[in-house]
Amino acid sequence: MAAQFRDQDQLLSKMATGNGHGEDSPYFDGWKAYDKDPYHPTKRPNGVIQMGLAENQLCFDLIQEWLMKNPEASICTPDGVENFNGRALFQDYHGLPEFREAIAKFMGKVRGGRVKFNPDRIVMSGGATGASETMAFCLAEPGDAFLVPTPYYAGYDRDLRWRTGVQLVHVVCESCNNFKITKSALEAAYENAKEDNIRVKGLLITNPSNPLGNILDRETLKGIVSFINEKNIHLVCDEIYAATVSTNQPNFISVSEVIEEDIECNRDLIHIIYSLSKDMGFPGFRVGIVYSYNDAVVNCARKMSSFGLVSTQTQHLIASMLSDDEFVDRFLAKSKERIETRRKVFIQGLARAGISCLDGNAGLFVWMDLRILLKDRSFEAEMELWKVIINEVKLNVSPGSSFHCLEPGWFRVCFANMDHNTMEVALSRIKTFMHQIKDQNREVKELAKKTCRQNSLKLSLSRRRVDDFLMSQISMSPHSPIPQSPLVPART
Amino acid sequence: MAAQFRDQDQLLSKMATGNGHGEDSPYFDGWKAYDKDPYHPTKRPNGVIQMGLAENQLCFDLIQEWLMKNPEASICTPDGVENFNGRALFQDYHGLPEFREAIAKFMGKVRGGRVKFNPDRIVMSGGATGASETMAFCLAEPGDAFLVPTPYYAGYDRDLRWRTGVQLVHVVCESCNNFKITKSALEAAYENAKEDNIRVKGLLITNPSNPLGNILDRETLKGIVSFINEKNIHLVCDEIYAATVSTNQPNFISVSEVIEEDIECNRDLIHIIYSLSKDMGFPGFRVGIVYSYNDAVVNCARKMSSFGLVSTQTQHLIASMLSDDEFVDRFLAKSKERIETRRKVFIQGLARAGISCLDGNAGLFVWMDLRILLKDRSFEAEMELWKVIINEVKLNVSPGSSFHCLEPGWFRVCFANMDHNTMEVALSRIKTFMHQIKDQNREVKELAKKTCRQNSLKLSLSRRRVDDFLMSQISMSPHSPIPQSPLVPART
Repeated sequence: MAAQFRDQDQLLSKMATGNGHGEDSPYFDGWKAYDKDPYHPTKRPNGVIQMGLAENQLCFDLIQEWLMKNPEASICTPDGVENFNGRALFQDYHGLPEFREAIAKFMGKVRGGRVKFNPDRIVMSGGATGASETMAFCLAEPGDAFLVPTPYYAGYDRDLRWRTGVQLVHVVCESCNNFKITKSALEAAYENAKEDNIRVKGLLITNPSNPLGNILDRETLKGIVSFINEKNIHLVCDEIYAATVSTNQPNFISVSEVIEEDIECNRDLIHIIYSLSKDMGFPGFRVGIVYSYNDAVVNCARKMSSFGLVSTQTQHLIASMLSDDEFVDRFLAKSKERIETRRKVFIQGLARAGISCLDGNAGLFVWMDLRILLKDRSFEAEMELWKVIINEVKLNVSPGSSFHCLEPGWFRVCFANMDHNTMEVALSRIKTFMHQIKDQNREVKELAKKTCRQNSLKLSLSRRRVDDFLMSQISMSPHSPIPQSPLVPART
Repeated sequence: MAAQFRDQDQLLSKMATGNGHGEDSPYFDGWKAYDKDPYHPTKRPNGVIQMGLAENQLCFDLIQEWLMKNPEASICTPDGVENFNGRALFQDYHGLPEFREAIAKFMGKVRGGRVKFNPDRIVMSGGATGASETMAFCLAEPGDAFLVPTPYYAGYDRDLRWRTGVQLVHVVCESCNNFKITKSALEAAYENAKEDNIRVKGLLITNPSNPLGNILDRETLKGIVSFINEKNIHLVCDEIYAATVSTNQPNFISVSEVIEEDIECNRDLIHIIYSLSKDMGFPGFRVGIVYSYNDAVVNCARKMSSFGLVSTQTQHLIASMLSDDEFVDRFLAKSKERIETRRKVFIQGLARAGISCLDGNAGLFVWMDLRILLKDRSFEAEMELWKVIINEVKLNVSPGSSFHCLEPGWFRVCFANMDHNTMEVALSRIKTFMHQIKDQNREVKELAKKTCRQNSLKLSLSRRRVDDFLMSQISMSPHSPIPQSPLVPART
């Protein structure tokens, strides 16, 4: 059997037999747990609620309304069918001109109309997934590295590394300053790579941040642009959550705005990744965009788009939809409003349950602080807690470790991929869970009083795993025998 | 300036600055010539006719008719819009179950219902382009090689080599036996690679062949399957033209049929590339398929499909369309019939002009034999003739050298990407061109008689380049001062 496996290993590539795709991660394991027992309000009310998926399901009514008013946008309606032949046949990797124009205009609108994008720099790719890989292929050799601030999107390990052989070098960001990307952290990562004889070819940032759900301020962005210019390395900005930023808090600032102001910046180093998966809620349509200020990169990425072109059926629909100014303006305003409302309600619900989150006004998720519930400050403890949440509380949230967060106890929780009622069920489960812990804490305190000098405690809570977990926390933390109260006020 | 270029070279990857994408080829240059001056019956009647594009435009009326009868197949119609949300959000790389089922059934029908395909082995990719690259990534390391019989599809140099670092080793096929893939040619290529210390990981064949327009007979296929089993290397069969084979000549035999009969075959070595770009005429929809009999390859290729998923809008449409048995049966019958009719008319037209083609009953093109028109048996002469055809005759055909044909003088000419009238215009241009050559030959003969012992001939034909070309042919071929008559009967 082992020999057979060895044969198979030789028969296929290392890529096919290895696990460089990065799917052996709790991020994806959680999805599998959800797939096995998905929540349904009537059919499976005790099923797992999917909070690991950063989907935007809040505005489909607006889309459907538009579709019914614009039958010519589909090549499969009597009004649009005469376009079928032309569209079905079109396979130029430049894309339909009207598609590129509509995307460029949309990208400008999403950034508040403060910058313009050139349709000739719009390059298609198979989702942001394909866009990330294209960037790595264009900018680096196998073995070269990109710096990436932690925590970062779990999929990057697949998208940027797997088939390109490129490495990711972590820029350590910490909770003490709200995971800010500091100059010193950037310098340290760069120097570490240099010491390891790794050539750094770029810095990859997500702004708005996934998983943090916040945005970079202008000063930080300026510092980043100056850092990459100083080192003569590329800056790849993943801005796929640009339209999810709340209106009534600090505005989203795109790198495209910063370089407009910074005449010193070498624009050949600046590249943006975009997509319609989050801002429009169309991940199934696979509309990924590379927008580069470097002509050679535009040229090469466009050739690469042969491997991940957007279906012309979809290009046609998107071109029609996004060139309708009135619709786009209304959609963007409504979408921001609805995401913001959902975010507020969700964060307030968590706060009532005694859970705080990182300050943020962007993304389709919050970065939830459960450090207080860990039996110790280890990733084993984080995984233990995560297993309780997924198996007992029945919520698929994503542990910080799957985003390479260097500090255990943080979890990304998505809130826009469900209806209001499902979110309420999720919040009520969280509340119950936290109350149980609170009760347990009280019980532990009382027991501790009673058996002050005894070492063995016996508890009889219903949830065995929570029990075990907390018991072990008590017995294994000599300096803090009683867990801290999780009732920390939330920052809302 | 040079220093600046060097900087840019270092700044980007070798992939971005090199020309490994293979687009610096007359195959693509011809497209550019067409783009500059495309033929239009009234607006640009002297423009270039595109005969370099293997498109299937013969059955769109059937598709449109079906679309009008099935409004629920679109998620943008009142009948289908309730599916919009679910489809727009769906991004599982397994694909919609109904899509995979419909594709598997369609693949079976295209192969005459003689074999069944398992929907669980259907893996999506960004067109056949993406499918080819996926195969290379799954099966080989950078530096490893695939054997490929010549002539082969020009795009393989990009699809299989560019981003994977895999090499293609030529298996030399020759016109003397109708470009048959012989055991000895396979062995020779394999041994050559071995001598050069290149590890051969597989053999890639296209069946039906692009550019030859013919199919492999059962014996050849069996020989190929036995060869790859003997060497323990993979067999990748590109069968994207499967439904273009004529009904009233030898049937298309898929590798899937051959391995059903060959119980000795190690199925882990067998993989099929498929697509709807040719058989349905939908290149814009980017429906590429990897069908592998190897579980590990299915598994890995599926993970890779993240980089080139088919838009769910398109998956939904295709699932509806291809699960309609009545429609599919009618479409396949009609499509074969129309392609066959077009092929016959075109080949007869060429024959009347004095041009023969390789025997074949498949594909959307013919492999045209113009060896007789070359001034010598060199690729320079082929390019010279090609330039005359594109610039003077105003037809974009593709020279054999762009398919790595090792024998100069062959050209691939596509016939299904235009209406009947355009094809007639193309044929009439070819006839005029051949008549001019014939007249010229006669004139040359008469002149030769008159000035039998003189070495300087002066001709005054209108087409200077044809003139120069033929003049040089005469003066440079001492053994054959008078070119052979091009009036060779065509094999139809």
